[in-house]
Formats: sequence, structure tokens, C-alpha cells
Amino acid sequence: MEIAFAGSRLDRADHIRSDSERLEQLMDWRARLLRLDGLDPVVTPENALDWGTIADADPASELVFLGLIDGRGCFAEVSAQLIGSMAPPNPRLWAAMAALSAEDLATYGAARSLVDWHARHRYCARCGCPTVLAKGGWQRTCTGEVCLAEHFPRVDPVTIMLVEHGDNLLLGRQPRFPPRRFSTLAGFVEPGESIEEAVAREVLEEAGVVVRSVGYVGSQPWPFPSSLMIGCHAVAEAAELTIDHTELEEAAWFTRAEVAAAMRGDDDARFIAPPPHAIAHHLLKWWLAR
Amino acid sequence: MEIAFAGSRLDRADHIRSDSERLEQLMDWRARLLRLDGLDPVVTPENALDWGTIADADPASELVFLGLIDGRGCFAEVSAQLIGSMAPPNPRLWAAMAALSAEDLATYGAARSLVDWHARHRYCARCGCPTVLAKGGWQRTCTGEVCLAEHFPRVDPVTIMLVEHGDNLLLGRQPRFPPRRFSTLAGFVEPGESIEEAVAREVLEEAGVVVRSVGYVGSQPWPFPSSLMIGCHAVAEAAELTIDHTELEEAAWFTRAEVAAAMRGDDDARFIAPPPHAIAHHLLKWWLAR
Repeated sequence: MEIAFAGSRLDRADHIRSDSERLEQLMDWRARLLRLDGLDPVVTPENALDWGTIADADPASELVFLGLIDGRGCFAEVSAQLIGSMAPPNPRLWAAMAALSAEDLATYGAARSLVDWHARHRYCARCGCPTVLAKGGWQRTCTGEVCLAEHFPRVDPVTIMLVEHGDNLLLGRQPRFPPRRFSTLAGFVEPGESIEEAVAREVLEEAGVVVRSVGYVGSQPWPFPSSLMIGCHAVAEAAELTIDHTELEEAAWFTRAEVAAAMRGDDDARFIAPPPHAIAHHLLKWWLAR
Repeated sequence: MEIAFAGSRLDRADHIRSDSERLEQLMDWRARLLRLDGLDPVVTPENALDWGTIADADPASELVFLGLIDGRGCFAEVSAQLIGSMAPPNPRLWAAMAALSAEDLATYGAARSLVDWHARHRYCARCGCPTVLAKGGWQRTCTGEVCLAEHFPRVDPVTIMLVEHGDNLLLGRQPRFPPRRFSTLAGFVEPGESIEEAVAREVLEEAGVVVRSVGYVGSQPWPFPSSLMIGCHAVAEAAELTIDHTELEEAAWFTRAEVAAAMRGDDDARFIAPPPHAIAHHLLKWWLAR
């Protein structure tokens, strides 16, 4: 399945992260610094990610090591302005991302998740002491002398599912969606459940539908802030819906023709399909192609 | 695929978590409290989880709402002794878990992950202020007046993979394994990568092997402390190994007959297979059955 936010050329070079000498050597004039505007990408006139040198970084910033591209160290900056802030969503972000190549979009997504994690994880959750960046930004370590807990960037697994009944597909809309947008149901995997159990629980909670035959379709990283979208399909036992209106504004069954019209972008389509950045878009495409 | 730590009878009853009145009502004499010894299960003579009533809880403890079984509220205790502690691994834990039914084991795993998360997440990672339990234990909220950040139980996705070359399987051993144990390679999914990319990166990092055709096999929650194991298979481009000895003590290719002998527990098997609690066991079984 073709997806967005995957396919970066970054070699994550895990062995370098713990090798402070090697990391130091990489931080010379050849090293590249990803230009960010807050957490958003800076896009060149050629529609590429904009890279500077690490000399451009504010000396007060933390630098995270993204990995190597063509043997050169690639870094991003956790600036003082970002720390502890909750940036309001930027409406131009989606246009900027749409301009980028698939490779650049994936590199940007990885950098965004990592920088955002550092900006929001300044203190030790165990003891409350300040933490410091370690292993090139792939760890933060507690400075409390008796604690010294190690913290790692967080990735939140989310199930997102095509639910079929006969030749119809279950789609819902969240209150925050743009007008007429419908998409596949989704929800975070909780401690103590498998992917398959999380799919069944979410569909039952949100739409009152019992499912069987849960299968895996594909996955995609989603850097808002750092989810792993796990695309599945499942078969509904019955078509009756009991919608949880705290989660969903609406949910309904859509025919194959209705989904196809929405994916073509027909003016008179019953709904507006999720955009190509979202795994939901590719799940719908996969379902139509079956 | 049959797996451990899934199949709990708990109804997680998400709608009750945010309904403090309903939650209060559930905490009466009928409510059940899961007995834990530190983080380990207390097992009855009938080899079941031991449940008391919430009157048994220390008034200083936090209580987390696990869900409903047969309509009764099920809770677990985050005791003062657990908070901030790092319990040493208990060698009897595995025997205790082996005595439990699949359903009880899954309930225990979910409770253990959740209780452990509360014990190690007392402070706000964003601002360092203390946090308090919210939504029946499915959230902690910062008490800092300007912050009020919401924190959610963490689940860490981990890829674990069958890597094939011809009719041989790649297995490795970590230094901490018991003698002669080999298992499938595994590693955490990082921010900005898909499941398929994480599989390819881990196999390349740990064994120097390039893989293609990554597919999904099955998933399992793993409550040490709170992983989501994502079982995959992949095909190696070549058999040559370059082992990363910081990660693996050894890695090698095993024939189908050698894997079958280990899974049967033959005395003269080339290695000792992973135990049934681990998804690796079921991945090997799945591979043999193909």
C-alpha cells in the first residue's frame, strides 16, 4: 500500500547515537540543519525541505541527530521558543506538506515528532527533576541523582479500520472534521490489548458494531504528534449502528459507488474523502481496488 | 494466531471512565480489587487471579478502573510502596503466570501495565509539577495551574520478525537470555517510520541483512512494562550476517528441522525455543505450520 510520511532517505544510524565522539565529529561544517518554522517545514522555491548548517542554530537550542543522508549528519533544533509551548495548528501546514516529495515529507515527519517530543518532555515523569538530552536526541536522562531514569521518544499505536458489511463500508465524522468529510473509524491501542482487540473495541464503542475477521492492511507514521497508524479491515456482524455521540458526530454505511465518487472528488459525491496524507485515503483506495 | 496476554473478559467500559458519578457508584461493596504482590499476580489455590473488595485497599492508594466483569467494577491499586520504585524482576513471576488461564493472564497483563505506568508517571513531563489520576486511571492531569497537561498511559509498539532465507530462519540471542535460548529479532518502532520500515531497519542494524516483502502475522500485548508486539515476516535478500554485538550475542540461520526440534523441546535440539508467553513462540509455530 502506498502511504505518506514513509520512505525517508535518512539512515537513522543507531550506532552513532551512543557514540559521542563520532556524533561530535559529524557536527562540523558539512552537517545539515533542518529549517523549521516552529514545528512546520520551511519549503524552498524548488518545493524541497530547506536545510542550513548547524552554525545557523541558536547556541541555546538542543540539537537532535536525525540520521545521515549521503553520509552527512542531519540535525534539527529544539529551540527555546518551542519548549513547553503548544503551537496552534497552522492552516498553511497542509499546503506546505503537499508541496514536498514523499521522501522529504517522511524526513520532515520524523523530525517533527522528535523535536516536538523534546519540547514537551523537559522533566522526569518519575521524580519531577529536569531531564537532559542524551544519545543524539533519542533519549532524555533525568538529572535527579537518585533517579537517573531514562526516557525515550514516544510512539502511540492507533488502529484505523475499514469495517465492511456486505458491500458497504462504515465511515464516521468527528466534530472537528471539515464539512462533509467522512473517514474510517480510529482509536488508540490501550495497554493490555492486541491490535485485533483494539479494532473490535473501538468499533463497538464508537458505532455499536460487533466485528469479526480483523485483518491487517498497512501502516503509516503520523507526526501529530507521534502516532503509528495501523490500518486494518474487519467484517461487521450486523448493520445496525449505535453511535457514541461524544466521539462521532455521525456514522453511516456507504456503498462502493459512493466511496468511489468521493475518492474521485465528484461534486455530487455523498461525502468528501480523507486527503492523501492520511492512511484512511489509502485504505479506501485499497478497499475499492479489492 | 493464538497468543498470550490477549482475550481478557474485561469490558473496558470507556464511557464510564469520564463519568465520575457512575464511577463512584461502581466503587461499592460489589466492586472487586485485583490483589497484586508488588506488580506480580496473587494466584489462588484454584490457579485464578485473586480478587478482594475495594475495602481492602490502602486509603492512601490510587485506584484504577480496569473495567467491568459480569457488570461488576474491577479495580487495581497503585500503592504508595510501588510509586517511583523499580521492582527487581521476580523469578517466580513466570511460574505464577503459567498457572493462570488465558483470560486471567490477559486481565493481569492489562492491570500490570496500567498500575506500573501510574507508579512511574507522578510528574508532568512538560512542566515538572505533580500530576493526579483522572478518568478512572486512564489519564493523569498536571496540577500546574498554567500547564494542566493531560498524559495518557503509554503503549510502545515493537516489531518482532521471522526473517527467512530459502527454508532457513534467522534467530538471535540477547546477552540477557537464558543459556541456549534463541528467538526472533525485535526492536521498538521509532517516530517517523512505518511498521514495515521498522522491521527492515532492525534486521539491517542487528544482523546486517537486507529484507523485502515484509508482511504482518499477528500482535500481542506484552506488559513489561507496556509493549505492543507486532509480529511480522520478511524475506532476506542474502544469507550473509554482520552481527551488531552491542545488541546480539549471536545470530544464525536455523533449518526447519532445527526449529521443529526446539519447539518440541528435544534434548538435543540446537537451541531452546522462546516460551509460550512470548509472541516469538507463536511466530515460530506459525512458520512451521506454513
